[in-house]
Amino acid sequence: MKKYSFSLLSSLLLFISCTENIVKTGITVTNISELNEAIANVTPGDEIIMSNGDWNDIEIKFAGYGEKDRPITLKAETAGGVIIKGKSDLKLGGEYLIVDGLHFRDGASPSNAVIEFAIDKNTVANHSKLTNCVIEDFNKAQRNQTDLWVLLKGRHNEVNHCYIAGKSNRGPTVRVDLEGNRNIKNYHKIINNHFGPRPPKGGPSAETIQIGNSFTSMSPSYTLVENNFFDRCNGEVEVISSKTNFNEFRNNVFYKSEGSLVTRHGNYCTVDGNYFIGDENSEQIGGIRLIGTGHWVINNYFYNLKGKVFRSPLAVMNGIPKSPLNRYIQVTDVVVAHNSWINCTSPLQFGVGSNVDQKDVLPASEIRSERAKRTVVANNLIYNEKGDVMPVVAHDSLDGIHFQSNLINNQGIAFPYDSGFDQEEFVISELEDNIFIPTIDLPDFKLYEGFEFDQIKKDVFGNSRENINGVGAISGTPKSTPNLMDKSKYGPIWYDISSMDTNEIQTHAVAKESELISAIAAAKSGDVISLGPGLYELGQSIKIDKELTIRSSNAKNKATIVYNGDAKTPLFEMNPKGQLTLDGISLKGGNSQYAFASLKSNMSSLYNLTVLNSEIVDFEYVLKGYKYSFSEYIKFNSTLIQDCKNGLELAAENDDKGDYNAENIFIENCQFINVSKNTINYYRGGYDESTVGGNLKVTNSSFNECGAQEENGILINTYGIINVDISGNKFIDNRVKMVARLWGAKNNSHENNELKNSGDLVVQENLPLKLMY
Amino acid sequence: MKKYSFSLLSSLLLFISCTENIVKTGITVTNISELNEAIANVTPGDEIIMSNGDWNDIEIKFAGYGEKDRPITLKAETAGGVIIKGKSDLKLGGEYLIVDGLHFRDGASPSNAVIEFAIDKNTVANHSKLTNCVIEDFNKAQRNQTDLWVLLKGRHNEVNHCYIAGKSNRGPTVRVDLEGNRNIKNYHKIINNHFGPRPPKGGPSAETIQIGNSFTSMSPSYTLVENNFFDRCNGEVEVISSKTNFNEFRNNVFYKSEGSLVTRHGNYCTVDGNYFIGDENSEQIGGIRLIGTGHWVINNYFYNLKGKVFRSPLAVMNGIPKSPLNRYIQVTDVVVAHNSWINCTSPLQFGVGSNVDQKDVLPASEIRSERAKRTVVANNLIYNEKGDVMPVVAHDSLDGIHFQSNLINNQGIAFPYDSGFDQEEFVISELEDNIFIPTIDLPDFKLYEGFEFDQIKKDVFGNSRENINGVGAISGTPKSTPNLMDKSKYGPIWYDISSMDTNEIQTHAVAKESELISAIAAAKSGDVISLGPGLYELGQSIKIDKELTIRSSNAKNKATIVYNGDAKTPLFEMNPKGQLTLDGISLKGGNSQYAFASLKSNMSSLYNLTVLNSEIVDFEYVLKGYKYSFSEYIKFNSTLIQDCKNGLELAAENDDKGDYNAENIFIENCQFINVSKNTINYYRGGYDESTVGGNLKVTNSSFNECGAQEENGILINTYGIINVDISGNKFIDNRVKMVARLWGAKNNSHENNELKNSGDLVVQENLPLKLMY
Repeated sequence: MKKYSFSLLSSLLLFISCTENIVKTGITVTNISELNEAIANVTPGDEIIMSNGDWNDIEIKFAGYGEKDRPITLKAETAGGVIIKGKSDLKLGGEYLIVDGLHFRDGASPSNAVIEFAIDKNTVANHSKLTNCVIEDFNKAQRNQTDLWVLLKGRHNEVNHCYIAGKSNRGPTVRVDLEGNRNIKNYHKIINNHFGPRPPKGGPSAETIQIGNSFTSMSPSYTLVENNFFDRCNGEVEVISSKTNFNEFRNNVFYKSEGSLVTRHGNYCTVDGNYFIGDENSEQIGGIRLIGTGHWVINNYFYNLKGKVFRSPLAVMNGIPKSPLNRYIQVTDVVVAHNSWINCTSPLQFGVGSNVDQKDVLPASEIRSERAKRTVVANNLIYNEKGDVMPVVAHDSLDGIHFQSNLINNQGIAFPYDSGFDQEEFVISELEDNIFIPTIDLPDFKLYEGFEFDQIKKDVFGNSRENINGVGAISGTPKSTPNLMDKSKYGPIWYDISSMDTNEIQTHAVAKESELISAIAAAKSGDVISLGPGLYELGQSIKIDKELTIRSSNAKNKATIVYNGDAKTPLFEMNPKGQLTLDGISLKGGNSQYAFASLKSNMSSLYNLTVLNSEIVDFEYVLKGYKYSFSEYIKFNSTLIQDCKNGLELAAENDDKGDYNAENIFIENCQFINVSKNTINYYRGGYDESTVGGNLKVTNSSFNECGAQEENGILINTYGIINVDISGNKFIDNRVKMVARLWGAKNNSHENNELKNSGDLVVQENLPLKLMY
Repeated sequence: MKKYSFSLLSSLLLFISCTENIVKTGITVTNISELNEAIANVTPGDEIIMSNGDWNDIEIKFAGYGEKDRPITLKAETAGGVIIKGKSDLKLGGEYLIVDGLHFRDGASPSNAVIEFAIDKNTVANHSKLTNCVIEDFNKAQRNQTDLWVLLKGRHNEVNHCYIAGKSNRGPTVRVDLEGNRNIKNYHKIINNHFGPRPPKGGPSAETIQIGNSFTSMSPSYTLVENNFFDRCNGEVEVISSKTNFNEFRNNVFYKSEGSLVTRHGNYCTVDGNYFIGDENSEQIGGIRLIGTGHWVINNYFYNLKGKVFRSPLAVMNGIPKSPLNRYIQVTDVVVAHNSWINCTSPLQFGVGSNVDQKDVLPASEIRSERAKRTVVANNLIYNEKGDVMPVVAHDSLDGIHFQSNLINNQGIAFPYDSGFDQEEFVISELEDNIFIPTIDLPDFKLYEGFEFDQIKKDVFGNSRENINGVGAISGTPKSTPNLMDKSKYGPIWYDISSMDTNEIQTHAVAKESELISAIAAAKSGDVISLGPGLYELGQSIKIDKELTIRSSNAKNKATIVYNGDAKTPLFEMNPKGQLTLDGISLKGGNSQYAFASLKSNMSSLYNLTVLNSEIVDFEYVLKGYKYSFSEYIKFNSTLIQDCKNGLELAAENDDKGDYNAENIFIENCQFINVSKNTINYYRGGYDESTVGGNLKVTNSSFNECGAQEENGILINTYGIINVDISGNKFIDNRVKMVARLWGAKNNSHENNELKNSGDLVVQENLPLKLMY
């Protein structure tokens, strides 16, 4: 046998060692074909570097098989330096892939997802990461066009440190798909992300995170959603819709998000150590809503939440007997322990959704009569600065709930269903913004030792409960503050959200038509256009695609805009992201034009409209919202509307799928005179009890000689709208059958209206609506 | 610091060591109060020894907290030496308890269970074992009285090496309860037991093992059922009803058991390496029936199974769209791989339960229209000694099934739906009783490499698939035989089943009444009473509570039994376990008595009746089955029935809960003359499509001048009976509206009957039945 010399052996060893330790340099690519070429040739450990700049209309299929210690990375030359625009998307397939530092904006996916962890049915990604990326306003052209921005498939994937904001079209922002055995037991992690504002969609399918669907609701998922910041995620009533089993939601911050974390389908989820921060002025911001079996809701902190019923801080729903797969499974074996509610209104609500009283109008399979059972509510803390007359709300019997060792300071106010609550006068103090903790330990408070309560080892701050185990979410006095609102903890480091709203407001004074037109074109978002007194005659629509205020320079001598454009064109054309405030302006049409209208199509984002102290006369329409358009706020205040053929028509969503054209319509102190039809026409079709909009307030206004040509015979038509308040108005000489037909079973109300020669104001308990499922 | 001397230290060490190694002697108890005293004082490591002998009417509450290495044991002085009788039960509560060597017989539980792993709601048993015990015929007095014989609660409990047989009353033999978080994730083990014969119950709720129920079907269970022998477990259509998630069924033998292993509710179960042994003469013996998501059916061996549809060797069911909790979830993401079917008829059936054609008569929520999807059937083997014209049965489209790399020897017979099947002429040979394996390796057969198929590491015998991975359940040639039928592998060692059926049959010749009566009293089960010719006048009922044959010694000169007992009393009183064969006897009543009847109550077990070559004349009833009575076989052959007010009435189960009074009624070559009503009245009420009984055959018989007083107008009333065959009969001059009204949608048939002046024989496609759920 031949002997190798020592030096040869050494060389060999050196060679092997070099091979293993080799640091591959990145492969820089500058266009899609180079990128495709690089992807086609990747080997474990490779880095593909996309050069900085705009990448338009690219559909990336990032396929490769990295290894645990040698992943394959696709990254920006500098984080945030690569802007992906146009019709672009990214699909991942393989193992151990990393996507790092990309910025998606000014575009939309041509497919079902912006970023998908699968290339085709059999090629999913596993052990792969999307990190340090931004997806912003990457909306399809209309809100009815569905997509997802991140679609997780496969197993063991991660989305971390991303900023994702502004989705306006149909579809959850992030979705985890579990169809097929490749996608179950996924252990995906969605961690440390900043979910920026998602505007309300005005209808369903606008969750920020959805995990599975009802058809896969029996599947084990084990998705972890941890340490994310949900910043005004207002898309719909569910911020997170958990629809599979064994998901975990830990230490997330839900900041003024108009929705709830909902265990919609699936069971045995853990909701541990989350913060729900509300707003005194919003009843839209919810907490946790529970459906199903075996969930543990522990160590959560709720502050300043004013949501009700479905949106209450804790909503424990009633189930449907032997529920169909897509409806409401009864709540059983749920544990609600060691949570704190600080200054929340009626925080604990049980039997939510109970509708036994509707059994004559709904099919039996829709009656939620099964109240929670084998459910423990223990060791929780409630503090109310002002005593709450109803901290516990029982929409049905509480006989299946075991309340024990809960502590409340209700300022001495007695309340119903207080069994299992100790009322004590403890004090709280502010630890940091939004976070209040009891200032002293409460002596001799005996905690409930429930089954497996010894497994609740830490409090909301992550401090051990082992030696000092206190009631509520916070145990003992923490050594440090959580710095909840420090945005640098969430999302990419390179993307500074706080710098984005610093545009300085400018006022543009104009005195004639041409100045007005050029000022509007030149104005930056947020600017003010100040009109000198006099007449402004316009023959073309004004496009509103940014935030603008147009006001008279002299409130006592209003400017008048006369619009003589083409018939059926609007004076103000409301484009996506258009936000117009009109203050003290007189608008005059030629009877065939519209004062305001959305685009007829491609309303990829919402618009808003506020009209103050103005006059709108001689138009075909005051406001027309086309199909698929959506406005969050439409406000008319102290404004005269006269001699128009139509008033405000926001009733174009006639598919009866729960969508509607405006979230809020507020009419205050206005006069409507001689509006022939559609005086106010606001419509939502399709019954889905979990959708809780829209909102109409008509207050202190007067309606005279309106509705003469109204076909449906109703002056203020609110069919299907959940929240309606008509109060303090005068209705005189309107030729209609009804002033309004309110929906008694929902939050529709009226008071102090004066009706004269205007038909009735009717309340009908149940409206016939088409079921949506 | 003080120093301990070496000797002190040694003593201390010695002391500690003694304390740890101490072997506690058992505490022997001789009665319940000593037992209770002993239980009250147990400490970890204790053994409580029940002294040998009968223990009557004892309700044991075995509570204690043992430790992992120091369990607390309750055991018989010698295994099997303690007989627990009368109204007795045993409840366990605590940790690390063992019950060893007890024998329950000649009694019944006074509670809901014979042995329960809980003392009350909050005191369950954990880490506890029932081992080496027997429960036999421990039936409640009537079959409608419900109990369980073993009720598992808590976690990590085990039932091993037990023999459990003969349950006749309502309720599964063994049940795992999952209500409440204490009982989920239970990891119970049911292993190495012998489940002896369970007779058919004649209605639902007679499973041998049930794991959970539909209301807990979302719960994780992780129960393991392994290496058990299911010996003619015929209670109902489900031998095992898995109703929770993640259960495992491994290496069990289902021996001629008239039912199936059913994943009724719950998902993601593993059915691996089981043996299903059938019988050429039985269509009742099933295999595996699948409902739900994510099950893996691998390495199973099916032999000689002839069951159809619900009872087919593999039945993949259709689901109900968005199924209610208690109905049929669609089959999705199921894997059926590496199974072998040897000489089974139509082994693979898909779309079982499809009933789209009944959508006009059933509510929408009952229509099973959702066929299996994302389901893989691969690497399976089928061998048919005689070619099967339909090895794959498609009750609905197969578009959701992916067939690949399945191998079949169908003796060259072509068949439909053969895509994904290779037909080859391989040979099999007998390895041991019931087990056949391919004799040669099949060259070049490419197995399908499905998702996670690499996790199928062993074959049915436990041999590794790593090097030789073959198609079907058996990979390569095994080194040893499985010894499947070696009963000593299952159940307690001390209990020898084989010795129990060795009673030698005696024939008792009798010539007069007194001899007949004393011979019947003295006879052992199985004996024959031989009657000399002549008249036997009896004034008292004869109690039949064992297996007896009564026959004429001279077939050509029949003995005649004349019964002149009280009105409405039977000549033969059929008691529980009574099995009577009457051969060549003439029975004569006085018009007010019954020839045969069950007890009016307390029919704790079934009875059987066979009448051959006999005459039955002048009775009020030929046979009356009272409510809650049940017979597995009622056979009349070559017998004349004449001048009776009523014929065979087995129609007392009027609660419409799916129960019925007899499993099989066979009438062959009989004459019915002048039977006024209830000529044959056989009834089952309550619709549950998964129940597949009873069975009526009326063949080659004649009916003359019957039914004159029939109130329902039907001569042979079979309302609700699933399997009916009326063929080759003559119906002459019967004053009824209908000879029969058959249920077209079920397995009801008729042919070659002659009808004259007897109304019609009607087939009605759908009978209106009350839904049971």
